Formats: sequence, structure tokens, C-alpha cells
Amino acid sequence: MKLSILGCYSATPRIIAHTTSQVLEMRGHLFLIDCGEGTQVELRRHKIKFNQIKHIFISHLHGDHYFGLVGLISTFRLLTRETDLHVYGPKGLKELITLQMKLADSWTNYKLIFHELTSKSSELVFEDEKVSVHTIPLDHRIYTNGFIFKEKPFERKLDINKAKDLNIDKAYFRKLKQGDDVVNEQGNLILNTEVTYQGHQPKSYAFCSDTAYKESIIPIISGVDVLYHESTFLEAHANLCAKTKHSTAKQAATIALKANVKQLILGHYSTRYGGLEGFKSEASAVFKDVLLADDGKVFDF
Amino acid sequence: MKLSILGCYSATPRIIAHTTSQVLEMRGHLFLIDCGEGTQVELRRHKIKFNQIKHIFISHLHGDHYFGLVGLISTFRLLTRETDLHVYGPKGLKELITLQMKLADSWTNYKLIFHELTSKSSELVFEDEKVSVHTIPLDHRIYTNGFIFKEKPFERKLDINKAKDLNIDKAYFRKLKQGDDVVNEQGNLILNTEVTYQGHQPKSYAFCSDTAYKESIIPIISGVDVLYHESTFLEAHANLCAKTKHSTAKQAATIALKANVKQLILGHYSTRYGGLEGFKSEASAVFKDVLLADDGKVFDF
Repeated sequence: MKLSILGCYSATPRIIAHTTSQVLEMRGHLFLIDCGEGTQVELRRHKIKFNQIKHIFISHLHGDHYFGLVGLISTFRLLTRETDLHVYGPKGLKELITLQMKLADSWTNYKLIFHELTSKSSELVFEDEKVSVHTIPLDHRIYTNGFIFKEKPFERKLDINKAKDLNIDKAYFRKLKQGDDVVNEQGNLILNTEVTYQGHQPKSYAFCSDTAYKESIIPIISGVDVLYHESTFLEAHANLCAKTKHSTAKQAATIALKANVKQLILGHYSTRYGGLEGFKSEASAVFKDVLLADDGKVFDF
Repeated sequence: MKLSILGCYSATPRIIAHTTSQVLEMRGHLFLIDCGEGTQVELRRHKIKFNQIKHIFISHLHGDHYFGLVGLISTFRLLTRETDLHVYGPKGLKELITLQMKLADSWTNYKLIFHELTSKSSELVFEDEKVSVHTIPLDHRIYTNGFIFKEKPFERKLDINKAKDLNIDKAYFRKLKQGDDVVNEQGNLILNTEVTYQGHQPKSYAFCSDTAYKESIIPIISGVDVLYHESTFLEAHANLCAKTKHSTAKQAATIALKANVKQLILGHYSTRYGGLEGFKSEASAVFKDVLLADDGKVFDF
């Protein structure tokens, strides 16, 4: 699991501070999460192949989270993309993108499939044999979802030599990896645990931006390996959270603690603060394993 | 008259090639012309004060000419702008920007005035006592206008010592600067030319992007000081012009020659060519004074 931060600052793009966008690499997928203005240029900077992006998740329709989407869709068209593109985001997005294509008289030659979200409960939005993606309803000024990405269990690892010693036919190897017991060539039952061992531990990632402090997300993100939680402000500006529906670093850390996550990444910083260390120290007083997102940073988990 | 090129490449923004946007400084105005994705960041890079931009001209609704507009409007709002903003562009722009503001539930606190264009003839779109702006109907795949910015005549310069020697009352100085003859304290008629001389020469700038070769623009831009004319292709790809409705460098130069302009700036280059020198040499074979636009370049005229 690999997370590339294309941008992690709030409000407006600046020369050295890009608005929200990140790419999660998970089991062969490249999931693009949010798409602030200039995202396509940051994708190029990270040398991420456009064609490998097949699913884009948009948390909400404030500009700093999606103004780069129409440009990316348009660039895919100009590069004669043929691969389907799925876009998951709030209702309204399809109408808006369609209007822009109509005004430009420029329609995609690839299939553009919108999955418009309206539910206020967590729901499954994407699933295949390797991963699942659910929404995380957040509390912001407009309808907003986070997303939780979960790897499905990996196959068990097979001790091939032991399996051969026990005279198990090769045709059963697949079943063994899937956790079944099998019968060997002598007709004896071989327990799965005799010839296999635990494979990779499936990982999970939760993206929560933008949101006020919201305890009802805890059961959804409980025990997640990595939680990205917005921390627009420090406690010194906690008074701004109610009106703007954002969180402080301390609040993000409190959610991480209560949800028993393994690691917390902070982001969506207001640019009013000189640097990012204040966010880390404030959160670290509450939760032990705090990481700071920053533009261009790549996390390998 | 000063022209700052924020971006001058066609199609899609790249790390070192921004799409079309430029700022024309003329008689105290800062006119923003087109607004590709990322324009607001380039404005910051050029240290152009956001509040000084009161008029934005959008040539057409292909993304590389306006995808940065909604972000700029939104950033103006976040920076609590109070100054009116006038946007001149094709019909549809108002509906689109309004829809985006509605979806974000974020309305500008400043006055945002759309001047939607539909005419296929050149028309006056802005005028004050110092400048005028007319459209230049272009020939592109969708409805497109260029714009011609003209300084109005400057006042005549007054030779104050001579005026005093001729016993002209100070109250008449304004009339003299405006070109009138006056009567002195002795009741004698003083011809304007006796005490004044030519002030600054008014300048003009024509922006023509995107367009196929179109001779009918010649009377509109005739004699202009500076013509920016797109040159997406070189003659080697002239065959692409008919379908895409773009021009070659040679065609841009031919228009400059026939319109008897003083200087030609090329731009809107396809990124298929290694460098820009090919554009200059191709155009220079036809027209003598060819300049190359490039991102970050500033022209003082």
C-alpha cells in the first residue's frame, strides 16, 4: 500500500501549496482521491501513468477538492484514452461535467461513468476480488464523504515442499491457498494448517477530509492501519471549527486514538501557520504515531 | 502597455507549459485574457495583485482557455474581495459558474457581472475614458472571440511657459490639453498648435486565439501595434488546421503582414515540437517583426 500526496493544503492553490489530491496504490489499483486545481500537473510530476487511474473519488464539491477534475477528464480525452473511468462523488458532479463537455462540444471517447452519492450512511461504492471501498459520512458545510479502502484477505502461503512430501496433487494447491483442507493421493485428509501459513496481512486506509470532529465515524474507521484526518487548524483557532466545520490537530488525534488506528496522517492545513511542526506536536500529545502529509510526499505502508 | 504571458501552450497544462492566459496592463487597467487551469498560481508568481483585476476576457469555452476561471473567482471570494468583477465570454459561462457556486453553497461577496457574448460581428464590450475593447470574431470549432484593446488618444502636452507668455488664463489649460483653441487675457485668439504639442501615441493590442486562418479579421485589427496570433502548428502540419481550426506560424505572419500590424507575437504552440525557434523562422520569412510568447515572459511596449 502506497500513498502519494499530490496536495494537502486547504482553500486555494499557491506556488508551493497544492490543494487536496492524493493517489492510493492498493493491490494493483491506483485510486485518485480528490482532485484540486492542478492535479493533472502533479500527477505528471509524480510520473503516475494516467491510464492506470480508473477510479476517482471526490469527497465534496468545494473547489479545493475537485476543480482539477474537469481538466483531468479533458486531458484524458486529448490523450485518446480508451479505458473506462469511474467517478464517485456527490450528486451534481455529473450535471456539471456534462455541461462543461457540452459547452466545449468535446465528448470523451472513453466511457465516463458517474456514481453519484447521496446517502448519509456508510455504503459500499466499489468492490472487486481484492479491495472494497466504503464511504465515510462526514460533517462539513456541504454534503461530504470520506472513503475507506480495505484490502481483502490475501491467500495463505503454501509450503510446496511439504505439500509434495505429503503427496498432495498439484490440482489442490489453489484450494490450499484459499484455506481449504484437502485429501492426498493416499486418500488421507490433510489439514490446511499443516501445509500453509499466514499470507500478507490485508491493509486498510481511511481518508477523512473535510470534517468537523465527528465521533460517529469511529465505528467505520475502527482499527484501520492508516487514517488521514484533516487538521485545518491548531487548538489556538478551535473557535473557527464550528463555523467552518473543520477540525484541529488535537481533534484528529482524538479520533485516531478512539478509533484505535495504527497511524495517523494529518493534512488539509490552513496556510496561516508558519510550518507544520505545530500540527505534529499538538496531535502527538494525544496519539503516538502521527505523520505529516506534505505535497510531494510518498508513504509506503 | 505591458503584456505578461502566464501561459501560451495549447491543449493541456504540463509541468513547464501552461495553457493560455495573459495579463495586459493598459492605462491603469489590468485585463486578464483567458484563464487556463492554474492561472491563479501564475498570477501569484508574477506578483500581480488580484484586486487590480477587474475585467476578465474569455475567448472560448475550451478548457485550456478557461478551466482556471472558477478557481480564480472562488479564491477572490476566499480573500474577501469587495471589488466588482466583470467577466466577458461566450454564453454558457454564467450558467456554469453559477452551478459551481450553487453546488459549493459558496456565493461571492463581491459583485460578479457576466457579459455573455453571442454576436458574430465585432462589437464594443468595454469602454471608459481611456480605453476601449472590441471583440474579434474568430473561426474555431466552437464560438470564439479574440479581443482588441485600444488606448484612446492621450491629451496634448502643454508648453506652460509659452502659455504664460501669451497671457492665457490657467483656467483654459485643460481645454488646451484637449485640443481646443482659446482666447487670452487681451481677447486674442490663440491657436491650440501655438502652445501644445503631440502627447503619447495611443497603443493597441489584438489577441487572436484560437482560430483558423481568417482574412475577415484583417479590417478589425488593421494597423494594430501588437498582434498576438495563435500558431498552433508549423506548415509541416498544415493539414491539421482544417480539422482543428488552428493556424500555422506562416498563416499568423500572413495575417500580420496583410493587416499591416507593427509587431506579431506568436503563441498557443502545440507541444509536439522540440522548441519554439521553428515558429519564429517560419513566420519571419513572411513578416519582419516576430516575437515569441513564452510562459513567464513580459513584453513592454
